Amino acid sequence: MPATDGIPQSPLQIAIVGMGNVGTGVAKILIEQADRIAHRAGRPVVVKHAIVKDETKSRDIVLPPGVLSSDLSRVLNDPTVTVAVETIGGLHPAKETVLALLKAGKDVVTANKALLCEYGHELFGTARELGRTIAFEAAVAGGIPIIAAVGQSMAANQIIGIQAILNGTSNYILTEMQLYGRSYAAALKQAQDLGYAEADPSLDVNGTDAAQKLSILVQLAFGTKLAVADFPVVGIDAVDQTDIRCAEELGYTIKLLASAKLTGKHIELSVRPTLVKKDRPLSQIPGPFNAILLEGDMVGPVWYSGRGAGQLPTASAVTADIIDIAVGRAQLTFSRLDLWREKPAFTNLGLDDYTSRYFLRLKVEDKPRVMADITGILGKHGISLASVIQPETPEVDSAAANVPVVPLIIMTHRTTAGQLAAANRDFDKLPAIHHPRVCLAVAD
Amino acid sequence: MPATDGIPQSPLQIAIVGMGNVGTGVAKILIEQADRIAHRAGRPVVVKHAIVKDETKSRDIVLPPGVLSSDLSRVLNDPTVTVAVETIGGLHPAKETVLALLKAGKDVVTANKALLCEYGHELFGTARELGRTIAFEAAVAGGIPIIAAVGQSMAANQIIGIQAILNGTSNYILTEMQLYGRSYAAALKQAQDLGYAEADPSLDVNGTDAAQKLSILVQLAFGTKLAVADFPVVGIDAVDQTDIRCAEELGYTIKLLASAKLTGKHIELSVRPTLVKKDRPLSQIPGPFNAILLEGDMVGPVWYSGRGAGQLPTASAVTADIIDIAVGRAQLTFSRLDLWREKPAFTNLGLDDYTSRYFLRLKVEDKPRVMADITGILGKHGISLASVIQPETPEVDSAAANVPVVPLIIMTHRTTAGQLAAANRDFDKLPAIHHPRVCLAVAD
Repeated sequence: MPATDGIPQSPLQIAIVGMGNVGTGVAKILIEQADRIAHRAGRPVVVKHAIVKDETKSRDIVLPPGVLSSDLSRVLNDPTVTVAVETIGGLHPAKETVLALLKAGKDVVTANKALLCEYGHELFGTARELGRTIAFEAAVAGGIPIIAAVGQSMAANQIIGIQAILNGTSNYILTEMQLYGRSYAAALKQAQDLGYAEADPSLDVNGTDAAQKLSILVQLAFGTKLAVADFPVVGIDAVDQTDIRCAEELGYTIKLLASAKLTGKHIELSVRPTLVKKDRPLSQIPGPFNAILLEGDMVGPVWYSGRGAGQLPTASAVTADIIDIAVGRAQLTFSRLDLWREKPAFTNLGLDDYTSRYFLRLKVEDKPRVMADITGILGKHGISLASVIQPETPEVDSAAANVPVVPLIIMTHRTTAGQLAAANRDFDKLPAIHHPRVCLAVAD
Repeated sequence: MPATDGIPQSPLQIAIVGMGNVGTGVAKILIEQADRIAHRAGRPVVVKHAIVKDETKSRDIVLPPGVLSSDLSRVLNDPTVTVAVETIGGLHPAKETVLALLKAGKDVVTANKALLCEYGHELFGTARELGRTIAFEAAVAGGIPIIAAVGQSMAANQIIGIQAILNGTSNYILTEMQLYGRSYAAALKQAQDLGYAEADPSLDVNGTDAAQKLSILVQLAFGTKLAVADFPVVGIDAVDQTDIRCAEELGYTIKLLASAKLTGKHIELSVRPTLVKKDRPLSQIPGPFNAILLEGDMVGPVWYSGRGAGQLPTASAVTADIIDIAVGRAQLTFSRLDLWREKPAFTNLGLDDYTSRYFLRLKVEDKPRVMADITGILGKHGISLASVIQPETPEVDSAAANVPVVPLIIMTHRTTAGQLAAANRDFDKLPAIHHPRVCLAVAD
């Protein structure tokens, strides 16, 4: 009884709405690997419609005649099409399109993390009301099956911690800065030249993209919906070579870390440049790769790594979702996913109560009492020091050329964000501390 | 419409057959985390029977009255029990038990890789004939959801390569030897003291355990059933400190690597101590952890790592399978898994045609022509040299105290196993090459 036998001849007919990079990749896999997909799905999967804004644009794929169209209503009014892939991207008209597709009776596969982060509640709610399914493996970490991991494989566990590198553009830039001493601007330019960064990279480098993905993971892992505005999100655009070099000397690599952890009934989550010990696997994730460490209370730590973006890795995840719908698994999974609860078991900790260890890099005037003032302020706010390093070579601050200014690096023990903010306010009153002050989290 | 609502009151009643370490872990999770499991499974999951050899043995768990029994027929004759967990281990009576459970109408969850490797064909065939499901996520790499990855998440891909560390005992021993310079015997003793190795560790250290797991992964990834006897399996028991030190100097770590790759329509697979470049993630997997690199033709490389054994990690995977059956997903997955084909698309390459790079460590007499003879033999068999290292300090071979004997390390370019075997036969005829000769594969 080989699994190749008995594939029913009724194909699963699908529509792809949005034929950009990812939509085109999905069509390529479904068309060029039709036998493989039929074997895995148990039935042929046929692209019946591909909906685009501009039918006349030249494309990197040849579609069968009659498939390409700019008219979404062809999909909505075709009862033979039961699954639609949303690869438009962005919020609008993606949201309206998904709602229309659900209402027209289609299950929807999407790779759109911005959409799910912003309107997931409404879209998931509509889908469940209508008995439809939304599958979104590709929305977080591209080719890494992290939605399946959280939603299925870890089902015996309460996830108690997530640490992840979820934005390949930022990770590529930080890796280049680290390995080759490039400036942030030069590394960003190179990421753009290689196609890892968009022409407008702001959502990548300011942490928003990673925060949207973390928000989706947190919702699945903890049943709690938190918006990007609800937690600290800091991008990599302020990280400079000095910090990378200082961190390296201390045995750390700076990564844009998306982190969530349970402390009792509370969640602490953040996306920010973070010092990660060099012997930790996450510190070694290179270039455009993504990585996720899930910590379960039963299974312990499990690491995943792979390509988080790119045409075929993302299309691979979308196609796995299509196969899951063809097999009937996605429908069962969606009905059981911990998408939200009326009374979440876990709520966001007050931001002032978030705890972390910190790396502080200050530029201070090299005169008596400054060190005493600084350590006094930290002590007053209950912040204890793990180490203090004042490198021997003084640097000259061009803004105050006659005053010798030296760098001072302080690693703190665990402290709260509130304590740190209070200390920072006191630092503001000390003219001997120059700007900018750098304050980066240190990973647990 | 929170997912907590609407859990039907009809529980899923299960039996656990075999209450050793893993079976006890499964019972612990199901009993101590009953609310969590009910929420994830959509219904309560109740342990109705726990079958043991000896009811009187003291146990690390308190079961409800009437659950513990030594009588398997209580499970077989109880129509309210629809799922059974086989945690007996070994081949017999595990095989007979699983067949009896399937015939009595139970779906079966097992963590037994030896059983599936040896009798999978018969057990899977019986299950499919009877319309039953076998779920076996825990059989390979414990807490790492690698069966789900191969069977579902990678469904859009042809897997083209697998490289994995699948035996935690061997990995622990090699890590200790590498980091702390311990002898093989001392590291093994420590692994036994810490509970990472059995009293009889032979199936772990001789590569059999890893080979059984690789065989299961190969079957899922390539649709081809190959027995452990069909491919090269070498354990770590012959690896010594000299090899680890030499490899380290060359920039490599020695790992017990389970490897499978497609070359055209052929598979090359092996389990053997292998030199892995130090900057590769697999070289850095520490102690008792497992790791798997899957290479898909669409998604590229995806890495997984986590605990490959232990009570709760393995029980976590078993429980995820139970939940998958409760939700109905496992049944759909099992019906689509590429468990075997009458005509496999890929077959085992002839063993002589397997290719690899190799690390050769020879002890040679330090006299004229020896180097010319050795390189002449390699050249005659078409084996080209990547590097040759003859360290400066000669060692004295106690077996021939008056002849200066020096170590000679040769790294070859890619060559076939047949070429290498022919060269080895010629080496046998050269008395200037002493024994033992070490020949280790070098990872791609």
